[in-house]
Amino acid sequence: MSHAPNPLVDDRDVEMILDELLDLRALAALPYFAEHDRETYEMVLEAARTLARDTLYPAYRTLDLDPPRLEGGRVIVHPALRALFAATQELGLASAARPHEVGGAQLPLTITALATAYLMAGNAAVYGYVGLTAGAAHLIEAFGSDALRADYMAKMYAGEWTGTMALTEPQAGSSLADITTLAEPAPGATDGHYLVRGSKIFISAGDHDLGGNIVHMTLARLAGAPAGMKGVSLLCVPKRRVEHGALVDNDVAVTGLVHKIGWRGLPSVLLAYGERGDCHGWLVGEPGQGIRYMFQMMNEARIMVGLNGVATASVAYHESLAYARVRTQGRAATGRDPAAPPIAIIEHADVRRMLLRQKAIVEGGLALLVRCSFYSDLADHAPEAQAAGAQRLLDLLTPIAKSFPAERGFESNVLALQIHGGYGYSSEYLPEAWLRDQKLNSIHEGTTGIQAADLLGRRAVAKGGAALAALGAEIGHACARARAAGVDAAWVAAVERGVGVVGELTPTLAQRGATDPAAMLLHATDYLDLFATVVIAWQWLDLAAVAREALAQPLPRGRAGRDAGYYAAKLAAAQYWIRTELPRIDHLAALCRDGEDSYGALDPTTL
Amino acid sequence: MSHAPNPLVDDRDVEMILDELLDLRALAALPYFAEHDRETYEMVLEAARTLARDTLYPAYRTLDLDPPRLEGGRVIVHPALRALFAATQELGLASAARPHEVGGAQLPLTITALATAYLMAGNAAVYGYVGLTAGAAHLIEAFGSDALRADYMAKMYAGEWTGTMALTEPQAGSSLADITTLAEPAPGATDGHYLVRGSKIFISAGDHDLGGNIVHMTLARLAGAPAGMKGVSLLCVPKRRVEHGALVDNDVAVTGLVHKIGWRGLPSVLLAYGERGDCHGWLVGEPGQGIRYMFQMMNEARIMVGLNGVATASVAYHESLAYARVRTQGRAATGRDPAAPPIAIIEHADVRRMLLRQKAIVEGGLALLVRCSFYSDLADHAPEAQAAGAQRLLDLLTPIAKSFPAERGFESNVLALQIHGGYGYSSEYLPEAWLRDQKLNSIHEGTTGIQAADLLGRRAVAKGGAALAALGAEIGHACARARAAGVDAAWVAAVERGVGVVGELTPTLAQRGATDPAAMLLHATDYLDLFATVVIAWQWLDLAAVAREALAQPLPRGRAGRDAGYYAAKLAAAQYWIRTELPRIDHLAALCRDGEDSYGALDPTTL
Repeated sequence: MSHAPNPLVDDRDVEMILDELLDLRALAALPYFAEHDRETYEMVLEAARTLARDTLYPAYRTLDLDPPRLEGGRVIVHPALRALFAATQELGLASAARPHEVGGAQLPLTITALATAYLMAGNAAVYGYVGLTAGAAHLIEAFGSDALRADYMAKMYAGEWTGTMALTEPQAGSSLADITTLAEPAPGATDGHYLVRGSKIFISAGDHDLGGNIVHMTLARLAGAPAGMKGVSLLCVPKRRVEHGALVDNDVAVTGLVHKIGWRGLPSVLLAYGERGDCHGWLVGEPGQGIRYMFQMMNEARIMVGLNGVATASVAYHESLAYARVRTQGRAATGRDPAAPPIAIIEHADVRRMLLRQKAIVEGGLALLVRCSFYSDLADHAPEAQAAGAQRLLDLLTPIAKSFPAERGFESNVLALQIHGGYGYSSEYLPEAWLRDQKLNSIHEGTTGIQAADLLGRRAVAKGGAALAALGAEIGHACARARAAGVDAAWVAAVERGVGVVGELTPTLAQRGATDPAAMLLHATDYLDLFATVVIAWQWLDLAAVAREALAQPLPRGRAGRDAGYYAAKLAAAQYWIRTELPRIDHLAALCRDGEDSYGALDPTTL
Repeated sequence: MSHAPNPLVDDRDVEMILDELLDLRALAALPYFAEHDRETYEMVLEAARTLARDTLYPAYRTLDLDPPRLEGGRVIVHPALRALFAATQELGLASAARPHEVGGAQLPLTITALATAYLMAGNAAVYGYVGLTAGAAHLIEAFGSDALRADYMAKMYAGEWTGTMALTEPQAGSSLADITTLAEPAPGATDGHYLVRGSKIFISAGDHDLGGNIVHMTLARLAGAPAGMKGVSLLCVPKRRVEHGALVDNDVAVTGLVHKIGWRGLPSVLLAYGERGDCHGWLVGEPGQGIRYMFQMMNEARIMVGLNGVATASVAYHESLAYARVRTQGRAATGRDPAAPPIAIIEHADVRRMLLRQKAIVEGGLALLVRCSFYSDLADHAPEAQAAGAQRLLDLLTPIAKSFPAERGFESNVLALQIHGGYGYSSEYLPEAWLRDQKLNSIHEGTTGIQAADLLGRRAVAKGGAALAALGAEIGHACARARAAGVDAAWVAAVERGVGVVGELTPTLAQRGATDPAAMLLHATDYLDLFATVVIAWQWLDLAAVAREALAQPLPRGRAGRDAGYYAAKLAAAQYWIRTELPRIDHLAALCRDGEDSYGALDPTTL
C-alpha cells in the first residue's frame, strides 16, 4: 500500500508558526539577529528538511535494525552513520545560534528549533550526536577557560569532535547529589588538570567510531568537597586530551554498552575514568558550581527532549494519516450494504478521533516548543527588561515543554500504531519503532516525576509566583487576540478559567508547602498534567485565532479551498483540545487541593 | 540488584478471590462440577503456578530474543519451545473445563482462568498455542460433525495437535464481511469436503515445528454465497488431512511470517490455501453461520485476551514493585541531608502513585476477569433462569473485560517501565518486553474501537437494555455488601452514582441511534472508557467490602500483621480508583451526551 511520502513535519505549519502565530519582528529588531531575515531562515529550514526527508528518514530502519556493538573496548556504530552524521553536521546546527566570535551564525533558536524538528523526526539518533555536541560546547563557551575554548570548544562547534553530558552514575540518576566520581588535583600539573576516577552510565554518544574526539562534560566531586549538590563540580574530560598540540589517550575506558530499546543509532555507554590513573580533567568554571552550570545545558536539553517528543509524534502522526487515507476497511455506520466497496478507514469517526488527537498533541506541542525557543531568543538577546520577562516564562514552561510531548506524545505514538492495526504490530511498519524511541523522553533529562516536582516545588512558586503572573498576562494577550479574531467566546472563557484554576491552586499548594513539603508535592504529577493541559489549550486558542484571522481575509487566489480546509482543521483541533481535554482540569485541581491520600498514606510494606 | 522472585500473580489474591470475593458454593452446587472441591482447585492452581514460575518465566527472554524463522516454507520455532509447550500441554488446560465425554475434566472456568493467568504472566507466547487449540477444538465440539470430532477435535483436546483461528485476510481484518477465501464443493467427494482457495494473514500458531498437526478453523465463503456476513461459513481446514487413517498434506502453504514486536515465541503466519488445488476443508455446522459460530470462539478469545492483558500487567507490576523496594535514589522531600543514605524509591510518593495505579488496574482487572469466568460457568452449567442471567452479564461485560486490560494494562506496563528509569529503557530488564507484548491486546480479537462500537451499538442496548438492568442489580448487591461491611459510605454512593450515569446515558444514546447511528456511536470510545471505569470501581468496592469484612474478624494468629497490611493496601487501591478515576465519568458522559463534534464533523480531506 503506497502512499504520499512522509513530510516528517508539516511545512505549512512551520510557515504559519513563523508568519502568523509568532511576531518575528521582535527578533528581527534585535541587533544579534540583524543579518538574518525570513529568506535566510527559509534557507536553513529548506536545507534541514531536504536532508531529513531525502537522507535521514530513509536510513531510519537500517540503523534501528543494527545497533552499535562493543568490540575490544570500542563502540562500533553502523557504517551508514558516518555519512549521515557528516551530512547532518554540515548543516552547522551545533553552532548556528551561537555568536560569530565562536564560529556561530547568530540565527534565532526559533529557526534552528524548527530545522531541528525535521531532523529529529527523520532520524532522532543521528541528530542526537549534534545536539549533545552543541550543548556540551555551549557549556565550555559559557563557563570554560580560554584554553578549554581553544582546545575543545572550537573543534566541537566546527563539527569535528562530539560532546556528551556525563552525569549519571550507577547509583546517581535522578539524584545528582550522590555523584561519587572523584577529581584530585594532579601534583605538579602545569595545566591545572585534575586526575579523575569514577564510573558513568547511560552516556549517550559516550563512544563511537565516527572519527574525531569525544569531550565528556562530566559531573564529579573535587577531593575534599562537601557531600550533596554543593560538592559537585563540572569538569571537561576528553576521550583524548590535547597535549603539546597532539591528541593523547586520556584513560577513559568503555566498560559496557546499554542495549537500548530505541534511539538505536546512538550508543548509550558505560564509562570508567582513570583505570590506569591517567585520566585528566579540567575544571570548568568555579568548584562546586557543577550542578548550576549543568542546569544551563539541562534546560536546553529539556527543550530539545520536548522537541524530540513532538518530532517523534509528528512523523508517526503523518504516517498514520497517510495510511488512514489509503487503507480501506468496513463501511459507514449508516450504510452497511455489503456489496458496496469498503471505505478508507479515515471515514470512520473513531479513526478520525485518533488522528485529531494526535494532531492536537503534535501541533499544540510544536507551537509550545517553538514559543519556548522564541522566549529563549528574547531572553538571550533582547534588552534587559524584555529579556528578563522572557526568561521567566521560559523557566516556568520548561518542565511542561519537556514532559508534555514525552507523555502525550507517547500516547500519540500509540494511536499511530493502533491506526495501523495488525500491521502496526509488525516491524515491517515504522510506528512501533517511533513508539520505542518516544519512551525515552519520559526518562532522560529528568523523569516526568522530577519535572513535576521541579515545576510545582520550585518554578511555579519562585519569587512569590512572579513567573505565574507573567504567564497569566501572556495568556491574557492570547485571549484578547482570540476574542478580537472572533474565536468562539466559550473557548476563550474556558482558557481564562483554566488560567484561573492554576492561579488559585498554586498559592494554596505553596502555603501547604511552607509547613509540609511532602503534602504540597503529593499530587505534583496531577498538577503538571493540569498545568500542561492549560498551556496546550493556550496554544490552541492562539492557533484558532490565527485561523479565524486568516479566514476573515480574502484567501490567496488559487489556494483558497486548500487554505480554508487547512484553517478549518486547526479550528477542529482547537475545539477538540478545549472541549475534550481542558475540562479534565477541574478534577485534577480537586485531587491536588483535597490532597487525596491513597498513595500518600500508603504503607509501602503492605504492597 | 537482586530481589524476590517474581510471583507473576499474587497467590494471596487468588486465594482471596476464591474464598472471600466470589461465592464458590454457587458452582459447587452444580452437578457439572460435582467431583471437584477447593482441594482439587488448589491442585490445578499449584501445578500451573509451579510450571509458570519454575519453567515458563525463566525461558521468557530466550524466546523473545530469538523469534521463529521461515525456512523452506516451514516455520521453525525456538528449540526450547518443544519442552515448554509439552509441559504446558500436560497441564491439560485445553480441555480442563470441557465435559468428560470429550476428554475434559469438568473444572470451572473460574479456576482454569486463574491457572491460565499464571501461565500467561509467565510466558504468554507459550500459553498461546494451548489457548488457541482450546478455542478451535471447542468450535468443532459445539458445531462440528461426529467425523470432525473424531478426526480432529479429540487430538486437539488431547494436546497432540494444535488449532488456530483463521479469520483475517489482507483486505479483511476488522471487517469480516469482506472475507474472500472460497470453498467450492469437490465434485464427487464422498466425505463432503470442499476445495478451498484463499489467503489468510496474522494467523497465530499458523505454522510451527512442534510436531503433531495444525487445524485451522477457517472463515470462508461457499461458492455462490451472498455478499457480506451472511455468506461467511466456518470450515475446518487442517494442515494435514486425515485420509484412510493416515495424514496427508492438505495444500496449506506458509507464504510469509509477520515480524511481530511481541509474543515472539508464537509465530504469526501468512497462509495460502489451495495453491495446488488440493486443499480440503469441511464445513462446520450450517452454511452462512460462520460468523455466528466464530463469535462463540471470539467471545471466549476476548475473555482470554483480557486475562492476558491482566497477566501481562501483573508480572510487570510485581517486577516494578520488587525493584522499587531495592533500588535507592534520592531523599525524602522532608529530609534532604545529603550525608544521609539514599532511600528506596518506593518511599517517594510519586513512585507509590505509579505502583498503586498499577495495582488498581491489575487487581481490579483480575477480579473482573475471574468474575466473567464465574458468569460463564453459571451460564453453561446452571439451571436455565440462573444461566440466562449470567449469560446476559457475561455478554454485556465482554467488551470491557477485553479492552480494559488492553488499554489500562498497557498504561500499567508503561508505569512499570518508568519505575525502572534508565534501566527500564534497556532490554536487560523485562518491562520493555511486556510492554511490547501488551500492545497486541488492543488490536487482536477486535480492536478497542470495535469493542466500543459493539458495547454501545449492540450489547448495552440489546433487548431494551435488559443486560444493563441486570448489571445494575448485580452492582446493587455489591453496594449492599459494601455498606453492610462498613465501607466508606461515600465510596458506595460514588459507585451507585456511576451506575446511574451509565443507566441514564445509555437510553439517551440508544434513542439517538434510532434515527442516526453515526451520532450514537460518535463517542463510543468515551462510553467504553466510562463504562469500564464504573465496572472496575464496582470490583474495587467489592474488594473493599472483602477487606472490611476480614478486618472486622479476629485475624488468624501469627499472620495478623501481614493480613491487616494486605487488606489495608486493598482499601488504599479501592480509594484510589474510586476517588481518582471514577470522577472522570462525568466529563466522559458530557462528551457522549453533548455529542462534541470536533472529529465527528471534521472533513478528512482537510487533515
